[in-house]
Amino acid sequence: MTLAVHYTAARTLTTAAAPADPPAPGPGEVELAPAYVGICGTDLHVFHGDMDARVARPAVLGHEMSGRILRVGPDVEGWRPGDAVTVMPLRWDGTCPACRAGHRHICHDLDFIGIDSPGALQQRWTVPAAALVRLPDTLPLDQAALVEPTAVAVHDVGRAGVRAGESIVVVGGGPVGVLIALVAASAGADVRVVEPSAHRRELAGELGLTTWDPATADVPAQVWEWTGGAGADVAFEVSGAAAGMDTAVEVLRVRGRLCLVAIHPRPREVDLHRFFWRELTLVGARLYDRADFETAVGLVAAGTVPTRRLISRVVPMTEAASAFAALEDGGHVMKILVDCGDNTREARP
Amino acid sequence: MTLAVHYTAARTLTTAAAPADPPAPGPGEVELAPAYVGICGTDLHVFHGDMDARVARPAVLGHEMSGRILRVGPDVEGWRPGDAVTVMPLRWDGTCPACRAGHRHICHDLDFIGIDSPGALQQRWTVPAAALVRLPDTLPLDQAALVEPTAVAVHDVGRAGVRAGESIVVVGGGPVGVLIALVAASAGADVRVVEPSAHRRELAGELGLTTWDPATADVPAQVWEWTGGAGADVAFEVSGAAAGMDTAVEVLRVRGRLCLVAIHPRPREVDLHRFFWRELTLVGARLYDRADFETAVGLVAAGTVPTRRLISRVVPMTEAASAFAALEDGGHVMKILVDCGDNTREARP
Repeated sequence: MTLAVHYTAARTLTTAAAPADPPAPGPGEVELAPAYVGICGTDLHVFHGDMDARVARPAVLGHEMSGRILRVGPDVEGWRPGDAVTVMPLRWDGTCPACRAGHRHICHDLDFIGIDSPGALQQRWTVPAAALVRLPDTLPLDQAALVEPTAVAVHDVGRAGVRAGESIVVVGGGPVGVLIALVAASAGADVRVVEPSAHRRELAGELGLTTWDPATADVPAQVWEWTGGAGADVAFEVSGAAAGMDTAVEVLRVRGRLCLVAIHPRPREVDLHRFFWRELTLVGARLYDRADFETAVGLVAAGTVPTRRLISRVVPMTEAASAFAALEDGGHVMKILVDCGDNTREARP
Repeated sequence: MTLAVHYTAARTLTTAAAPADPPAPGPGEVELAPAYVGICGTDLHVFHGDMDARVARPAVLGHEMSGRILRVGPDVEGWRPGDAVTVMPLRWDGTCPACRAGHRHICHDLDFIGIDSPGALQQRWTVPAAALVRLPDTLPLDQAALVEPTAVAVHDVGRAGVRAGESIVVVGGGPVGVLIALVAASAGADVRVVEPSAHRRELAGELGLTTWDPATADVPAQVWEWTGGAGADVAFEVSGAAAGMDTAVEVLRVRGRLCLVAIHPRPREVDLHRFFWRELTLVGARLYDRADFETAVGLVAAGTVPTRRLISRVVPMTEAASAFAALEDGGHVMKILVDCGDNTREARP
């Protein structure tokens, strides 16, 4: 008997035993035993019911994970039961114009595993072997559950073209913002994080990051002083708030780059004149590709990105609903992991 | 006795004789006899009184020009009376963070000659020799007055990184939009121009450009059909209208680039989610640098950009006010030149 967490309706998660054992993995597939699953902002959107038009219910969420292979289907090479893995949760069609242009992670018909198809919040999870990313055996699986958001950060820093010595403002100090700041700092950039939550600022500070509270600091004035009147080279908008977008635009130097990471569901008023006047660049950044994942595994495994410090709490599957509720509060937790049970250790070879 | 056109108050231009002969050009300066001066959208903004906070009155406008050198001041090398020239109307401080970073055309204290200091709508005009750009003797001076807006277009096409074979949508078919379309086409791109004015569409068509009327065509649907469902590689927003910005965002393919050319004085609602979802890039483009001017001279002189076709009318200095009024109407004229008088021919060596 194995457990799964089901999203059935807005604000409703139920943890229940699967009615039957899952079928053996098909050709090109593997069956995993998820160990730890992180909950992210998109999962919260689903939990709120905001994505019910897209999500078929009952749904199994979860796309930030670590685990081990249980069973390997036919025609799968290079993987064995017991291998420690994470999953790049993307399935593309390979034929649309974006795929043909080489941008498969923005496939016009992308299947995001964990939203569009069943995710990792279950004790048996079958995925395409092509989605597997190998984890070093030395990397604890709780930390490895943060490889996926770290891959997001690696992708964002790459999209912004961050270079050593550049001045970077990260607007929004939640998990992704802090990871962006850490990845940018590891690339040699000088980073400031703008975050209203005292708890999150404190954590960022413990990780060696300099923070500003937008409620008390005049952030643009601080940036001018910091950069000798020039402005920042790069701003990351990770807050999703109108004020955050304004700040990200305002702090940039001439020819500065704004990397748009957060989701702004509705159109926002943007100071386009400043984009013209200062020849600014805005770059959208979504998801990641395999190279970002490989880089993220390396950064997490080396401790360059100290992911364990970002884990606020680990809860059992039966408490998944309370974990979602705690995250709604936002400022008092960073990352919550769901422990999918001892079975992950039994699965070791 | 020489004439000058003065902007004295909103919607008021007076053409009058200068009270005295101008002083001889100082060190590093030259005195020019402007031949033809084009009127641009920024001049219209000044004419409407919208820029009175910036413009010291009485002001002499005019920054799109051709002419000949009359007198050369001390310490000026390489220039002689009679030389045919245009002017890159920028004076930078050389010391601000933007200048030090190599972006002098976006100097924090830029003096835009013709707005912040006296422009070309006069029969004697003293400018820094450093601002001169040489014109080939074979290039008629009326056509040469369009080198400046052509340099804008060259800069914009460069900022967007247009490559041969790319699909380009230019939103707005006024003078700058048409020049962008022509420069992009000369680089081997496949171009469509979106323009509501029938007169401007007709002119663009005569220049070999394909146009769409946004009032009758479903532009995004046309773009999908044209590009096999992918979307355009690049969109230029040259309209300054909210609907134009929306169109420019909507037509882009995954990883498409939007080059923002038009001035949007107030913040605009922008579909940021689409920038995220399709990983779009927005690039602001302002003015030009010397390389853009040199390229523009070459394109105009070779006839690659057939600037004479864009000249709707040439008026004497005494009719400058009526030319501004005609341009306010927008759709029925492209470029109007002010002829600064026979003195330009007398100035030939």
